Amino acid sequence: MTSGEYRITVDPLGREVACRDGMDLLEALREAGIGVESVCGGRGSCGKCRVRILRGEAGEPSAEELERLPEEHREEGMRLACQVFPRGDLVIYIPASSLTSSQRLQLESGLRPGEFDPAVRAYDVEVELPEQPGDAGSDLLRLRESLRRGTPGADAAAIDIEALRTLPRALREQAGAVRAVLRGREVLGIIPRKRSPLGLAVDLGSTKIALFLYDLESGELLSSHGLLNPQIPYGEDIVTRIQQATEGKAGRLRELAVKGIEEGLSAMLEESDRERGEVFEAVVVGNTAMHHLFLGLPVEQLGRSPYLPATDLPQEVKARDLGLGMNPSAVVYLPPPLAGYVGSDHLAALMAARLEERRGPCLLLDIGTNTEVALQVDGRVRCCSCASGPAFEGGGLSCGMRAGEGAVESVTLDPRSGELELAVIGDAAPAGICGSGILSVLAALVRSGTVGPDGRLVEGRPLVARGKDGLYLTLSQGSGGGEALTITQNDIREIQKAKGAMRAGIDALLEEAGLGPGDLREIILAGAFGTYVDPADALALALLPPLPITLVKQVGNAAGAGARSMLLSQNARREGEETAERIEYLELSAYPRLAPLFAADMYLTEEAVAAAKARFKLGRQA
Amino acid sequence: MTSGEYRITVDPLGREVACRDGMDLLEALREAGIGVESVCGGRGSCGKCRVRILRGEAGEPSAEELERLPEEHREEGMRLACQVFPRGDLVIYIPASSLTSSQRLQLESGLRPGEFDPAVRAYDVEVELPEQPGDAGSDLLRLRESLRRGTPGADAAAIDIEALRTLPRALREQAGAVRAVLRGREVLGIIPRKRSPLGLAVDLGSTKIALFLYDLESGELLSSHGLLNPQIPYGEDIVTRIQQATEGKAGRLRELAVKGIEEGLSAMLEESDRERGEVFEAVVVGNTAMHHLFLGLPVEQLGRSPYLPATDLPQEVKARDLGLGMNPSAVVYLPPPLAGYVGSDHLAALMAARLEERRGPCLLLDIGTNTEVALQVDGRVRCCSCASGPAFEGGGLSCGMRAGEGAVESVTLDPRSGELELAVIGDAAPAGICGSGILSVLAALVRSGTVGPDGRLVEGRPLVARGKDGLYLTLSQGSGGGEALTITQNDIREIQKAKGAMRAGIDALLEEAGLGPGDLREIILAGAFGTYVDPADALALALLPPLPITLVKQVGNAAGAGARSMLLSQNARREGEETAERIEYLELSAYPRLAPLFAADMYLTEEAVAAAKARFKLGRQA
Repeated sequence: MTSGEYRITVDPLGREVACRDGMDLLEALREAGIGVESVCGGRGSCGKCRVRILRGEAGEPSAEELERLPEEHREEGMRLACQVFPRGDLVIYIPASSLTSSQRLQLESGLRPGEFDPAVRAYDVEVELPEQPGDAGSDLLRLRESLRRGTPGADAAAIDIEALRTLPRALREQAGAVRAVLRGREVLGIIPRKRSPLGLAVDLGSTKIALFLYDLESGELLSSHGLLNPQIPYGEDIVTRIQQATEGKAGRLRELAVKGIEEGLSAMLEESDRERGEVFEAVVVGNTAMHHLFLGLPVEQLGRSPYLPATDLPQEVKARDLGLGMNPSAVVYLPPPLAGYVGSDHLAALMAARLEERRGPCLLLDIGTNTEVALQVDGRVRCCSCASGPAFEGGGLSCGMRAGEGAVESVTLDPRSGELELAVIGDAAPAGICGSGILSVLAALVRSGTVGPDGRLVEGRPLVARGKDGLYLTLSQGSGGGEALTITQNDIREIQKAKGAMRAGIDALLEEAGLGPGDLREIILAGAFGTYVDPADALALALLPPLPITLVKQVGNAAGAGARSMLLSQNARREGEETAERIEYLELSAYPRLAPLFAADMYLTEEAVAAAKARFKLGRQA
Repeated sequence: MTSGEYRITVDPLGREVACRDGMDLLEALREAGIGVESVCGGRGSCGKCRVRILRGEAGEPSAEELERLPEEHREEGMRLACQVFPRGDLVIYIPASSLTSSQRLQLESGLRPGEFDPAVRAYDVEVELPEQPGDAGSDLLRLRESLRRGTPGADAAAIDIEALRTLPRALREQAGAVRAVLRGREVLGIIPRKRSPLGLAVDLGSTKIALFLYDLESGELLSSHGLLNPQIPYGEDIVTRIQQATEGKAGRLRELAVKGIEEGLSAMLEESDRERGEVFEAVVVGNTAMHHLFLGLPVEQLGRSPYLPATDLPQEVKARDLGLGMNPSAVVYLPPPLAGYVGSDHLAALMAARLEERRGPCLLLDIGTNTEVALQVDGRVRCCSCASGPAFEGGGLSCGMRAGEGAVESVTLDPRSGELELAVIGDAAPAGICGSGILSVLAALVRSGTVGPDGRLVEGRPLVARGKDGLYLTLSQGSGGGEALTITQNDIREIQKAKGAMRAGIDALLEEAGLGPGDLREIILAGAFGTYVDPADALALALLPPLPITLVKQVGNAAGAGARSMLLSQNARREGEETAERIEYLELSAYPRLAPLFAADMYLTEEAVAAAKARFKLGRQA
């Protein structure tokens, strides 16, 4: 940054942007290419460009902010970006609702990539082709000699059979002036001089597949892409898919995973004007079921107690053995799964977050149908998996929907009217509530006393009514012929179970380490849900242990970031493999105090949780 | 051997058999399972059981032998096995014509197999399967731990994807008591306790495919098999097949090579009551065109000057990448080709013959359409390939045929009547002459003066007549309505060209080493033709440099023997790869004195060859 410029660290994107003296924050963010919502054009009247100031001096709120932002939000540091004129370096957090949707799809991660040390490298060679009678040396020998001449130390000790099949023609088509693509000491292919080898990093989630296409020579990210996992018709959750696989659909599920990756890859290649034959390596991370289904491994033993994976080793497979359309010699690297329900995606997240190196004790959470939790204390990492169910992704709720157009993603309680203000994705009529939205709604309802700490809707409160299935709350009446949007008592119970399961996992890990919640120094939220959830809501509902909000970090798609690091760095792979061997796994289904922890953790305020734990004599065994 | 027993070393089979005092040689050979032809049951009257005594005291010939064996054969040590009663250790040589045909198909080699140190090994493991909630460790981890417990030092650092796919079920089906098959540190599969991994050695010849099936645990040879290469319809010789491949038939030729190997493998598996899934490794040697066609490598550059291969490295390929039906994880190892026309089969032969270690100077020849020659002097090996053409295999001759039923395989000139006695395979009516037969015939004709040293048929000699295409010789009148068997002047020219090309290659290597023919201490004949040709004929026709006949060794299918060693010993592979890097290749087409050498070497006696060389001022540049 030059003088008269301030450094703005932007969470959860992990970006640093410059802000010149006198420039407002919205302008600075937009200049850096970060899409922030704004309707009024920066006049402070639409209230869309909300950001939270985590560190640094941002001045007093303007009159517009006082009008637009509820007091409790202002107390948590919320501001309107267009009204903030930085006078020094800032650390800010942009809630998902303030990001434009294209920005949300970028699946950025707030984490540094590791060093650049890819397994696949390209070398320019100048192969003298044999022409005269008496010229000796095979095509490969000539290639190896040119390689050694050009790059001392570079050696090709082996060649993939597919690369060998194309070698003679490839050399002759370019008159010997080509680039050799090697992976370690194995030749994977020959490409024209003007081309570079590409690499693919994939976070193969049960719901979403996130893909990143890199130039493996420059290290440049060429494109990224997100799509829904085409396996979803065979079950929203992992358990259903395991069942389907056991009942003869394993082959189909494998094909669909491959198809999903190929779809994403094709879109990125088209966008970058590159070809499949140029992709020489892929790194794929995912939960253990996805890992197994993608590799064509049996999953029966994953679906049965004690829920163990087939392998705990990293796996290298030729893309052709998976039917994955890349260069015929390409290699797919899969980091090791940690346990049946803690996958390589969690390992990747843990590596990207550098969890082992952080000042602990600290937690890493990847919230989803299964929530993986890792606790680091003095460099020692324990992890577990909580069966949190699909509620956080909007599943199993009468009002639930995916985070798409029409989904309520946050809610504000107007302090004067007591009315709920809904923020809807795409500014459409509210059609349902997505995962982050339901927490926002529930937090507002608990805050206003409409829902009790035990999760019960309170009869007589505004918007609460009794139907034939019990109490429910009307969130929106449904304008223009649309249906009303309601929350039932059962919906709230589902959320309670999900959050109870997750918090119980956290508490079990803390118990095992002999710690209480107050000992934590940091909580890192990874994954899509962890990005979009407002930490203030998660803390208010006691989903997370009680901690100052500034100690909650949202790092976005950390699993994807980890996969990207492992694509770009052999050292990151080695470190990941070593870490995988060290991590201790706690199987919650065999944890003796899980049931009472779960019962206590279903309460919706920290006070109620603590009181229940005291009743059950739970917590730190000091 | 116990006392009162003698040791009989049997060339070219490389066997040692015991012979008790008072037992005749035929009986001793049969007792050891070596099938020797005999019609009269050992009374000395059929003259079929001819053997040559190379070393040791065999006593005086019997009256039956004096009657049955021509004097010139007796002078070379020829005896009837049924008439020889050993009184001490002997070294004998059994000509192919004396072996029963089943014996000929055994493709034995007169060479010691190397040490037993296979790349693929089986380990008994006792894997404790997870049952209780809280049991930890993937199936693979449990396997690895059991492996380490059972065999200190054994480690499985990786697993083939196909093996991993079957691991969970394989472990559970046998309740964890299984055998793990590893190749180095990679798990290739799980087999039941009572099974052992199998290995396949293949000599993939242009004409014949020889296969050997081994138990890789015991090192036992389970079965061997020989069949014609199914590619033959696409050309008898390599050059035609290269052309066909270049014209779009490469895929078909590849499939046919695979089919041939699979056919042979299936036959051997059935015979041994074993299954494809038990075959975990194969070693395939062959000439460079076969190597390339089998691997699916382009052969255009092999068919064009300077005739170079695509690779000079050893290649490891998964059998599944070749479409070869074995265990899905099986690996195929191909030793490196030495040059475009000196293949890995020659390397294998050279290793099996331990050429580098022999007291030199010595020659190794593998005679065929292309004859590969290697000369070792002071441990330094030079090799070349001679375009000897198909005449030695009966190709291109009006009277030629493969060595099958009805083929004349040797001829004796009755010293009294001057008549030719034909030995015919299968004792059928003579239908043609096979490669070894034509040399036998030609040697007899030159000896009797019917053919001059320059190869011309001499008009006026018995059996010689003039037809519309010039002179020809009637070998057999054709009995029972059969056609007459004749040899034309052109047939003789074809043989002269073949033998001239081969001898010129030998002479060029000798020239390059600064040696004359008299400096050689040994000539080793490998391959089918080298097994069946009578060295006396080859020496008489100056096909080989002049050397005492006892210094000519016939080692049978040395390429196959080398492939078998490399299957059974990793050390043999390493040695082969190191040798391949050291061997020097001489490209004859660029050799300046090839034409005059060839012209001189076409003469059919050593005297005529020497005289021509003197005229052309060729030979040792002393």
